[in-house]
Amino acid sequence: MANATADIGLIGLAVMGENLVLNMESHGFTCAVYNRTTAKVDEFVNGRGAGKKFVGAHSLKDFVASIKRPRKIMMMVKAGKAVDDTIESVLPYLEAGDILIDGGNTHFPDTSRRMKSLKEKGIRFIGSGVSGGEEGALKGPSIMPGGEESAWPEVKPIFQAIAAKVKDTDGSEAACCDWVGPEGAGHFVKMVHNGIEYGDMQLICESYNLLKDLCGMAPAEMSQVFGKWNKGVLDSYLVEITTDILAFVDPETGKPMVDVILDTAGQKGTGKWTVDSATENGVPLTLIAEAVFSRCLSAQKAERVAAAPLLAGPTAQPVADKAQFVADVEMALYAAKIVSYAQGYALMAAQAKANGWTLNNGGIALMWRGGCIIRSAFLGKIKEAFDKNPSLVNLLVDPYFAGELGKAQAGWRRVVGAAAASGIPLPAISSALAYYDGYRTARLPANLLQAQRDYFGAHTYERLDKPRGEFFHTNWTGRGGTTTSKAYNV
Amino acid sequence: MANATADIGLIGLAVMGENLVLNMESHGFTCAVYNRTTAKVDEFVNGRGAGKKFVGAHSLKDFVASIKRPRKIMMMVKAGKAVDDTIESVLPYLEAGDILIDGGNTHFPDTSRRMKSLKEKGIRFIGSGVSGGEEGALKGPSIMPGGEESAWPEVKPIFQAIAAKVKDTDGSEAACCDWVGPEGAGHFVKMVHNGIEYGDMQLICESYNLLKDLCGMAPAEMSQVFGKWNKGVLDSYLVEITTDILAFVDPETGKPMVDVILDTAGQKGTGKWTVDSATENGVPLTLIAEAVFSRCLSAQKAERVAAAPLLAGPTAQPVADKAQFVADVEMALYAAKIVSYAQGYALMAAQAKANGWTLNNGGIALMWRGGCIIRSAFLGKIKEAFDKNPSLVNLLVDPYFAGELGKAQAGWRRVVGAAAASGIPLPAISSALAYYDGYRTARLPANLLQAQRDYFGAHTYERLDKPRGEFFHTNWTGRGGTTTSKAYNV
Repeated sequence: MANATADIGLIGLAVMGENLVLNMESHGFTCAVYNRTTAKVDEFVNGRGAGKKFVGAHSLKDFVASIKRPRKIMMMVKAGKAVDDTIESVLPYLEAGDILIDGGNTHFPDTSRRMKSLKEKGIRFIGSGVSGGEEGALKGPSIMPGGEESAWPEVKPIFQAIAAKVKDTDGSEAACCDWVGPEGAGHFVKMVHNGIEYGDMQLICESYNLLKDLCGMAPAEMSQVFGKWNKGVLDSYLVEITTDILAFVDPETGKPMVDVILDTAGQKGTGKWTVDSATENGVPLTLIAEAVFSRCLSAQKAERVAAAPLLAGPTAQPVADKAQFVADVEMALYAAKIVSYAQGYALMAAQAKANGWTLNNGGIALMWRGGCIIRSAFLGKIKEAFDKNPSLVNLLVDPYFAGELGKAQAGWRRVVGAAAASGIPLPAISSALAYYDGYRTARLPANLLQAQRDYFGAHTYERLDKPRGEFFHTNWTGRGGTTTSKAYNV
Repeated sequence: MANATADIGLIGLAVMGENLVLNMESHGFTCAVYNRTTAKVDEFVNGRGAGKKFVGAHSLKDFVASIKRPRKIMMMVKAGKAVDDTIESVLPYLEAGDILIDGGNTHFPDTSRRMKSLKEKGIRFIGSGVSGGEEGALKGPSIMPGGEESAWPEVKPIFQAIAAKVKDTDGSEAACCDWVGPEGAGHFVKMVHNGIEYGDMQLICESYNLLKDLCGMAPAEMSQVFGKWNKGVLDSYLVEITTDILAFVDPETGKPMVDVILDTAGQKGTGKWTVDSATENGVPLTLIAEAVFSRCLSAQKAERVAAAPLLAGPTAQPVADKAQFVADVEMALYAAKIVSYAQGYALMAAQAKANGWTLNNGGIALMWRGGCIIRSAFLGKIKEAFDKNPSLVNLLVDPYFAGELGKAQAGWRRVVGAAAASGIPLPAISSALAYYDGYRTARLPANLLQAQRDYFGAHTYERLDKPRGEFFHTNWTGRGGTTTSKAYNV
């Protein structure tokens, strides 16, 4: 039986788990590690973990016994049934006050459920988003914990030590980790982060497609464009890695690496959940929805290949002023990205309201500024916006962002027009423009829609010249009755 | 105690229920009617139902006793708990073999659940979509029944008598009602119908907005445009009623009616479910999603009014050649509508596959040709497409529709470009164009996305020059390990 020497334990030695404990160990923490396939434990302790303060365990009993009380045990296993199974298998060895942390990509309602169920058993449960991928986990991820708040002071020193560090708006150093909120709030905010990540990636892909097909640029030249963009308003991790990726040459063929990679992406998981949460809350989250659906369409590779010769398109119009067009694409990407973050924040506000949570909007922007996948310079501006006006209704109307959008819009509009004329699909960039133009339209054409609903289903409408909440029905045809629909919803 | 004289019974006397039984009665069927608020029964029997073959009942016991066996009882109550409550309250009076029909807008998984539960009690359950609104219910709706197939021959004579009639592609008369499939298939197909209805309505609103803001047309002039469109490829119920609506003058103010109606629409219900089903099945249903989100945005009236002066837009460019632009808008509306139906059919194929259902694609087009809200001439062409090729993968590649899109695309592209330049939001029309251009693109930029996912999360990718199913990982930075992610999904 091992002595209780470990500061924290980790279950699940896939790449994220490995790198997280290597990160913890490098900050002075002793970590117990366990994996269901126990050969993985030896492989790790004698491999990447050799000569370091790791306690490898071959049974859950030994694993739990090796951790100091109150025990902090982090699970990095596949979201879903594996989390429930892991909780069930480790539970017999835990004692009251011990802390279980789910660091996987769990759907937030599951975290709320598990927290309540474990509370009855005296176990404190935290559901924590962890973002940053392979390298972030190793060098400093963004960590978004929520759940049983009494457990936070116990976990805080470790989490804030290993998290990425950024300069706050006042110049002080801040960890990209803070308490997010009750129940599943941590996993919810991580889910929205991932939805925004889906959007950012799709926007970069659309921009790349424009440079490739309308400017005829090769990957190496595009790498230089992205590298330049990464020094401006688009400064962010995803633009940075895109710069690297576009410059990478396949050692096998000598071709640019992107040119040999298959164009199909999966979409199950957090992107889908974010869209479902948006439809549930009635929040227009158009850009992320288009990004999720774009992945679905990319997966229909055989259908697309078969359809390409059958469906007519225009001849692509090569760009006359390449430098101007590249600048326009930068503005289109920037403006659409602002729209995406505005929609994401609107979703968070709606879900928080529905659940009775209070979310620290500025703090979330700070957590996303470093470590995670979407980290970008302009998150500092988002924090400033919420610092100045904590009850900001929509990021678009913050004076800074409104000004940036005003400067970006001309180029953005030219890009959408050029793509439509040339047959280049821009689902996310054009959807963002439609949202921007819709959001700034005091009177949308939904009056006609309400008239239609009243015409065919007696659904009633409100009038511009009457107070809200008064409903009217017109007998449009002279044939219908005066009965209105209260029991039938279209 | 009443004698059993009624051919069918109906529970729920809101406008849809009233009109359905008036329709049944006019086709020679004696109908028992019941409503929880029993005053409504007397009001109906002595009002719109006076002098007709109705049996009004003040208790469920008398109501059930008045119906011939095997009893056919149709519920037209609000979807959700009210359906379960109604089933529970009527169940004690039913006998083995009796048939309960839910004709409301129920979410299809609930129908599957209820059918299974009632089957154990010897009751045959049908979940039936009914579309056509107030007037359709009275004069001939589209009816989409599914569930316990042994009940279909009992119900068929009544349903097919009251349903709308259309000419089939071979010239024969066909009822807009046929058996859809097992379990919740009837309600599922009705849900997709409603999603498509959301899309059609949004497309008409966007077209109206273009005519209004870029051509400066008054409602009466737009009514003439829609009236003309209704004689061409856009021939449909919604274009027809839009023609009426735009010509309608408010008796109170003397203004065009649409000009006094508030521009806010609700979105709860079937539109949301359709989008959720699309994300669940991984089917890009972008147009309907944009339509649902457009309703959400329309509901944010106060936010939009506040944002309008704060967010910069371009000066709208008045259209130079009005006749050409109107023709372009017609093509944009037509092409986007084809995309929407193609996406809807793709969703039905995916859900049917997931549930092991066989859906008659041509038959569904026929059911939608009359009676319902989306009924339009081109559904005949959809039936022809599936008659010619029952395993058609996507409507877009049917030779007829591919040809129509080829003719429409130039105008469609000009409209999207003009709207982007002038600041008119076209979420659905522009999203449809992005889908069309994406679907006909053999190589999408998702290769870059896969590279990003492999870079930050070791998610692996496939290669163009290797068979599908082989996954590769690149150590992009020289710093990451060779461990790939199998347990961590982004």
